[in-house]
Amino acid sequence: MAEAGIEYVRLAEFSWGVIEPTLGGLDFSWLDEAVDILADHGLNVVLCTPTATPPKWLVDEHPEILQADPDGTPRHFGSRRHYCFNSPRYREETRRIVSEMAAHYADHPAVVGWQTDNEFGCHGTVRCYCEDCSAAFSEWLAAKYDDVGDLNEQWGTTFWSQQYASFEAVDPPRPTPADHHPSRLLDYYRFATDSVIEYNRIHADLIREHGDWFVTHNFMGDFETLDMHKVSNDLDLVSWDSYPTGFVQDRRAADPSMDELRAGDPDQVGLNHDLCRATNDAPFWVMEQQPGDVNWPPSCPQPGDGAMRLWAHHAVGHGADAVLYFRWRRCLEGQEQYHAGLMKQDGSPDRGYNEAKAAAEELTTVDVDHVDASVALLHDYDNWWAIGVQPHAPEFDYWEHLRCYYRVLRARGVQVDVVHPDAPLDDYEAVVAPGLHLVDTELADHLTQFVEQGGQLLVGARSGVKTPANQLHETLAPGPLADLTGLVVDQHESYPEDVPLAVEVDGDEYAATIWAEWLDPDPQTTVVATHTSGPGAGRPAVTRRNRGDGSVTYCGVWPGSELLDELVAELLSRGGIKHTSRLPDGVRFNERDGLTWVTNFTSRQFELDVPMGAVVSGGQTLGAFDVAVVSTAPHLISISNEAS
Amino acid sequence: MAEAGIEYVRLAEFSWGVIEPTLGGLDFSWLDEAVDILADHGLNVVLCTPTATPPKWLVDEHPEILQADPDGTPRHFGSRRHYCFNSPRYREETRRIVSEMAAHYADHPAVVGWQTDNEFGCHGTVRCYCEDCSAAFSEWLAAKYDDVGDLNEQWGTTFWSQQYASFEAVDPPRPTPADHHPSRLLDYYRFATDSVIEYNRIHADLIREHGDWFVTHNFMGDFETLDMHKVSNDLDLVSWDSYPTGFVQDRRAADPSMDELRAGDPDQVGLNHDLCRATNDAPFWVMEQQPGDVNWPPSCPQPGDGAMRLWAHHAVGHGADAVLYFRWRRCLEGQEQYHAGLMKQDGSPDRGYNEAKAAAEELTTVDVDHVDASVALLHDYDNWWAIGVQPHAPEFDYWEHLRCYYRVLRARGVQVDVVHPDAPLDDYEAVVAPGLHLVDTELADHLTQFVEQGGQLLVGARSGVKTPANQLHETLAPGPLADLTGLVVDQHESYPEDVPLAVEVDGDEYAATIWAEWLDPDPQTTVVATHTSGPGAGRPAVTRRNRGDGSVTYCGVWPGSELLDELVAELLSRGGIKHTSRLPDGVRFNERDGLTWVTNFTSRQFELDVPMGAVVSGGQTLGAFDVAVVSTAPHLISISNEAS
Amino acid sequence: MAEAGIEYVRLAEFSWGVIEPTLGGLDFSWLDEAVDILADHGLNVVLCTPTATPPKWLVDEHPEILQADPDGTPRHFGSRRHYCFNSPRYREETRRIVSEMAAHYADHPAVVGWQTDNEFGCHGTVRCYCEDCSAAFSEWLAAKYDDVGDLNEQWGTTFWSQQYASFEAVDPPRPTPADHHPSRLLDYYRFATDSVIEYNRIHADLIREHGDWFVTHNFMGDFETLDMHKVSNDLDLVSWDSYPTGFVQDRRAADPSMDELRAGDPDQVGLNHDLCRATNDAPFWVMEQQPGDVNWPPSCPQPGDGAMRLWAHHAVGHGADAVLYFRWRRCLEGQEQYHAGLMKQDGSPDRGYNEAKAAAEELTTVDVDHVDASVALLHDYDNWWAIGVQPHAPEFDYWEHLRCYYRVLRARGVQVDVVHPDAPLDDYEAVVAPGLHLVDTELADHLTQFVEQGGQLLVGARSGVKTPANQLHETLAPGPLADLTGLVVDQHESYPEDVPLAVEVDGDEYAATIWAEWLDPDPQTTVVATHTSGPGAGRPAVTRRNRGDGSVTYCGVWPGSELLDELVAELLSRGGIKHTSRLPDGVRFNERDGLTWVTNFTSRQFELDVPMGAVVSGGQTLGAFDVAVVSTAPHLISISNEAS
Ligand SMILES: [Mg+2]
Ligand SMILES: [Mg+2]
Ligand SMILES: [Mg+2]
Ligand SMILES: [Zn+2]
Ligand SMILES: [Zn+2]
Ligand SMILES: [Zn+2]
Repeated sequence: MAEAGIEYVRLAEFSWGVIEPTLGGLDFSWLDEAVDILADHGLNVVLCTPTATPPKWLVDEHPEILQADPDGTPRHFGSRRHYCFNSPRYREETRRIVSEMAAHYADHPAVVGWQTDNEFGCHGTVRCYCEDCSAAFSEWLAAKYDDVGDLNEQWGTTFWSQQYASFEAVDPPRPTPADHHPSRLLDYYRFATDSVIEYNRIHADLIREHGDWFVTHNFMGDFETLDMHKVSNDLDLVSWDSYPTGFVQDRRAADPSMDELRAGDPDQVGLNHDLCRATNDAPFWVMEQQPGDVNWPPSCPQPGDGAMRLWAHHAVGHGADAVLYFRWRRCLEGQEQYHAGLMKQDGSPDRGYNEAKAAAEELTTVDVDHVDASVALLHDYDNWWAIGVQPHAPEFDYWEHLRCYYRVLRARGVQVDVVHPDAPLDDYEAVVAPGLHLVDTELADHLTQFVEQGGQLLVGARSGVKTPANQLHETLAPGPLADLTGLVVDQHESYPEDVPLAVEVDGDEYAATIWAEWLDPDPQTTVVATHTSGPGAGRPAVTRRNRGDGSVTYCGVWPGSELLDELVAELLSRGGIKHTSRLPDGVRFNERDGLTWVTNFTSRQFELDVPMGAVVSGGQTLGAFDVAVVSTAPHLISISNEAS
Repeated sequence: MAEAGIEYVRLAEFSWGVIEPTLGGLDFSWLDEAVDILADHGLNVVLCTPTATPPKWLVDEHPEILQADPDGTPRHFGSRRHYCFNSPRYREETRRIVSEMAAHYADHPAVVGWQTDNEFGCHGTVRCYCEDCSAAFSEWLAAKYDDVGDLNEQWGTTFWSQQYASFEAVDPPRPTPADHHPSRLLDYYRFATDSVIEYNRIHADLIREHGDWFVTHNFMGDFETLDMHKVSNDLDLVSWDSYPTGFVQDRRAADPSMDELRAGDPDQVGLNHDLCRATNDAPFWVMEQQPGDVNWPPSCPQPGDGAMRLWAHHAVGHGADAVLYFRWRRCLEGQEQYHAGLMKQDGSPDRGYNEAKAAAEELTTVDVDHVDASVALLHDYDNWWAIGVQPHAPEFDYWEHLRCYYRVLRARGVQVDVVHPDAPLDDYEAVVAPGLHLVDTELADHLTQFVEQGGQLLVGARSGVKTPANQLHETLAPGPLADLTGLVVDQHESYPEDVPLAVEVDGDEYAATIWAEWLDPDPQTTVVATHTSGPGAGRPAVTRRNRGDGSVTYCGVWPGSELLDELVAELLSRGGIKHTSRLPDGVRFNERDGLTWVTNFTSRQFELDVPMGAVVSGGQTLGAFDVAVVSTAPHLISISNEAS
Repeated sequence: MAEAGIEYVRLAEFSWGVIEPTLGGLDFSWLDEAVDILADHGLNVVLCTPTATPPKWLVDEHPEILQADPDGTPRHFGSRRHYCFNSPRYREETRRIVSEMAAHYADHPAVVGWQTDNEFGCHGTVRCYCEDCSAAFSEWLAAKYDDVGDLNEQWGTTFWSQQYASFEAVDPPRPTPADHHPSRLLDYYRFATDSVIEYNRIHADLIREHGDWFVTHNFMGDFETLDMHKVSNDLDLVSWDSYPTGFVQDRRAADPSMDELRAGDPDQVGLNHDLCRATNDAPFWVMEQQPGDVNWPPSCPQPGDGAMRLWAHHAVGHGADAVLYFRWRRCLEGQEQYHAGLMKQDGSPDRGYNEAKAAAEELTTVDVDHVDASVALLHDYDNWWAIGVQPHAPEFDYWEHLRCYYRVLRARGVQVDVVHPDAPLDDYEAVVAPGLHLVDTELADHLTQFVEQGGQLLVGARSGVKTPANQLHETLAPGPLADLTGLVVDQHESYPEDVPLAVEVDGDEYAATIWAEWLDPDPQTTVVATHTSGPGAGRPAVTRRNRGDGSVTYCGVWPGSELLDELVAELLSRGGIKHTSRLPDGVRFNERDGLTWVTNFTSRQFELDVPMGAVVSGGQTLGAFDVAVVSTAPHLISISNEAS
């Protein structure tokens, strides 16, 4: 491993069954040996609490620790993640095993940090519907609301006679004839993420009791049900598991191109990098980087030559301080036999081995600080959930919508911090807020202050529609943002995705899709675009107004990329943010501490026009799935597509 | 409201939770106030029994009132319609709350009528599979059959050893490895509708005990599981809830056009109007008319300008005596936040307000009697269910098939009564019977008498195939209708909808689809059309014979609209029924008491050629989504499409 | 019946309810009468044990005999096959009813054989998840493995902490958050088939105790979950139920053509014939031949004129000794009313009657021995299941893949034995092994011996990947076959089916699909084809090597039919197997004991070039859905397509 340039090794993430084959029969000997060998070769170890896989003897003794589906069916033993975060019994067992393990490795110098559990919520397990969760939900509500009358009012339970006489009367949202109450669902989703937070904190607190270690957790990408902003508050280090060719198949609406099947979508990956980096405003880790072909996506072509090296560089350009590959060697047993490792099952190097080694060598010479971004993209899980509860259009997916905005920003070569709306905005020149659905006056004030102090704000459709309790504001959308944006939304419409919509800007037509709002601007608000057809023809679709030292643009459609690029370019210019011309699809620039990573996620070849001496790694010719690191700023680099 | 031309206000349909916040703690004060205010402004009130939403305290006290899915999963609290119609406990609670409420408003002069519950069966709740339903089903069977041997014989339980030793042994149709017995299913569906009838009668009887009010219920449109003919026997007034742009998306097989997304399909809506009008042979109400965009269809474009006015006129042309809009004001809370009202959430008028007001003003001057139709379309829920149990072709949907016949009749400008096959037919010149699947000799005699007395009958495919018990007749189809139609069906075939079928009529080819029968006509029967391909090529597909003073046409395919128009035009001519030439798609005429409503559900413009003075409302130019009321009979009106 | 040429009549397959209307109230009188009448007309009777449909009184008395879904939902009474194979109670009841019935008919001369139960496993009932199955699975495991440590090691339960402390701790695979362990699943599938075997043996043993009868079972076609090779060990005669126009719609990936909707796919049907014939190396029966249109496929066009005759001949050409039609007369009652019989419901002959009679007359003169095949196609249910558990590509279906190989062999006019890999191979010149996934050294030795003794072997992709326990081999694929094939698989890839793949052979490009392997051949191995694109471009895709007196070809892609035909033609030539040029689609030759059946499953017309006197049945002109029997060997027959 050391030979391959590896510095960190993560161990023991599903090891409960070997650590404790029978109740109380703890056996760390095999793990001691492994850790010692790694230590002897100068490698650092990250240990994992083994709680993602409670062993069968524990499940048989305490079947109540199992999660349950909404209809009450238990989520049985036989894979992983079958335990309930709210099970008092499982929390007790967790405390026991984590304490034992942390105590055992308390003095080991090679152990530098801990990963709590593994991929919280994977396989749809954030939300559980068991009896323990029912009780815990009632307690959570009791803590949140003054009394049950307060809950009834904030949710609005008069509708369809949904009043509750006590907190105990509120159950998890089980199968009902018609849709659930949106306020109840949203609170259940919040409760579920809070359950994971509490559970994670049990680990973090116990680990910190035993040593001066960092505590991390490996999040999943494009992951809706767990509020990473909130969980990260309890972590020293944010990390995530990146599988570009899998995610492009199963967590994105558009069908992948062949290039994407070979290397993934840089913006899909990048959005997760930027979320991980920005949520705690610190360098992050990729805890599992795809090492080759893997087992779980629908199709598994071999990644392009160079893709494994490319992904490592791309992560570093986005702010990663370490990239670990999963896994070291292909496993003969169980569910992941089709998951490649850096080594094949027979111990010989697999395709990823040399690429990982090459990347490690190239990156050894690079020493960079934290990424500094001028643009913030506001992201809130509550908005994701609230729009998901009432999408009002089958294709209106909050994350896809946000990704459209992110993609256009990235195509202009700027770094983007993906932050919670409540985050401090003082350091940003421009803020982009698509689908900022739940807004109260406090948030409106926060954004108003940003704009008045000179910030440039771009607000997307469906913003300011609801209260944080998921009720409509009594005033028309964008509710508390009406004053700031200088408009109200007269009507909204949703369309099947295959119905082409259009708006007109200065006589040119631009495509839009899925969603349209008819805006009623204030007199001081400028109309940027108008609708072109239907009963809303001629009505404003995009507006802009100046306010204090800044400006606010409101985009009342799901914009096509051409329209959005116009709005974004204008926004960046207003904010004085240096940016590139529109980059080719699949090619992205990432500036970090004076260096620029130029990454090519395509099979085409490009030429970089940079000074000879500016090339730190790679070359001026960018081959298929290739990367170059240069000391030139993005807006000064020009790139041309050569026939490859 | 009065300003908007509103005369009737419906109230309290989901109000149990506020009427009775805790068991026995009845509080009508808020409702008293509302009714009094409306009364003060001269408005009439229709009250609703609040039983569609049993409150949580009742569910917690008596969880056995919940419905159950076929696999036993309860249909939990949290939306609406979660109660079982057969729950003895819930019937008792129903009696209590309905009595209290009816007694409370017994002397209020503003209360003119009552709606029982709300949209019985919505969200798939007609059919319940709980233990109470199991017991009630056994009782229902015991009441229907002489003894269990009679049941075994009529169902035919020898097949696959499905004999029952007692009525108690018969359960609801729960999950089985293979398909259920069709006779058992059909009886379960009948039992389910009868359960609603009994439950509705509890309301009706108690209401009538307390006052001289009309009793109505608001049915859903295109609704399979509840036998409206039977429920309506207990109602003074039939009403239904009409959502044209929603239904066209989710209750019709064909994808909607953009015009249909904006205004719906007039024949889809009209078929429901005509069913409501004809089932009790009296004017009906639209209890909920779509007021703008609504929350539940897949997509929600804004309706076309004028659509809300158009729908009101269209309903009146079909025989409605009142059109109420749902809802008055958009609701801030709960599941229907995306459902428009006539007023926006901030209290300002929404798009529907002015259109509803315009329609009300125009219709004030119109005073018309009940619609008089010369054509009856036979419709029987038993046939819908029996064909649904064994469709024998994924695309053979009884209601879609019936709608094809209805559409072609409507395109000839005639009013159509949609009636049960047992209804008196003396007043009709022509009767159309598509998919008259279950036929006994009594029904055959009824139809034979109609024909012999000079009626013109058009019988569609799959007629006379089975007994009312859902067994095959031992004689070939059309079984008891063989003598009347003068043929037997030698073979039937089903095809995927994308396989084009064709028949030949006098050397011309006409399209058909999905279903084909090879007919063996009697010598006195004339062959109208023959099949053109496959092993049935040359075999008769459509026949006609005279009988007594009338005629019978049998159509042994699912006909394309061209073929069907030929058959219908011939039928109308034979019956001496005045009709138009084929009307443009989306334009329909409705004659009522000397006036003709000309409705345009398209965005195209048309010119009407009618005498100047004949225009009662609207004008000679029919704009997009426009309506005209004229005093000219349909067959004397000509209409031309002007480029709009 | 005798008039129709019928010799055998099968009776009583679902008759428990009439044989025993109440517990112990046995009544064979009606069946005695039926058997006697048939005997009087010289007909032979095959009786069935009636166990596929336990009556309601038995279910009510012992609800624990019901099967259960993975989530615990019982598979209720109301159709068929609702009993659990492992229920001790049901086994006891089975012993009772089978003994009574066998004893009753012990001396009846007309009863020549017995069918056990009916279509074991139909409707997804091989695999049950009830508590009895849980206990039985634990016992089955205890019998298979030395101890639970042995199980843990062979399955590889260290992965994700899936260790078991006892056999009792192992449950059926119920719902889990993520995928199940592949070794556990595979053993559960084996256990399930073994449960049927044990259950079938109860019947067979009891029947043989009472008479010198043959024992058969009617298998389903294209049926994954039941290991026919193993069940057949306990049968004297293998039979199956053939529904060509149904299977072509619901058990094949490609959409059927119109000809296939009328007559089915000869290779789909033939593969089942050849499996039935070869598994016990003896003539088989078609126990249910489709008699016309049937009730269960999505669409039911009428079969082409002649199809029912064609199917009978086709079966005989493949080695059938009897073809029985299901059913004699259309049934008025229950689930199969839309299933044609040879007679209509009114007792008049239906379309199949005359065709069945014609086939019977033509075949009376034919007296042929068992089919003699030179080619074996290896087929193992374990491979079907193992690949099904981890397909690694949504479209990689083991049976579809095997059928591709079969189809190309059949298009060369050779008979093919479909046998288990362990079967003796001495009598074959060529062996084809696609997807031979689970391989141990014993099997590798078996195949090596075949090749060294002069056999020609064609091995398909995904072979030798795993141990019989469904773990990866520690050596690279094809694992134990690496030495024999002279290669290892460096990488494998899967692609969406709509991505066209290609390989190059001698400068020509051939299509492939879904699956690609990059082969590392030994020096003595010849590269036959190479990949043409992607990171594997230029890498070997197909190889061949000589070994001993034979040769081994390895095909590392899912080959298109052109490529596969090249490989198969070469294989047959090397083996000295006489074969035809490529036959037209839908036309197939079957040689049996000196006669050749030429069957035309298309509506086109063909001319046969054979000596005048060689025609035994039919003629030289082959009409639509026609058949000819000639005394010429396949490779000497030429056929040309005339415009029909
Ligand atoms: Mg609770
Ligand atoms: Mg019952
Ligand atoms: Mg067990
Ligand atoms: Zn839980
Ligand atoms: Zn019920
Ligand atoms: Zn079982």
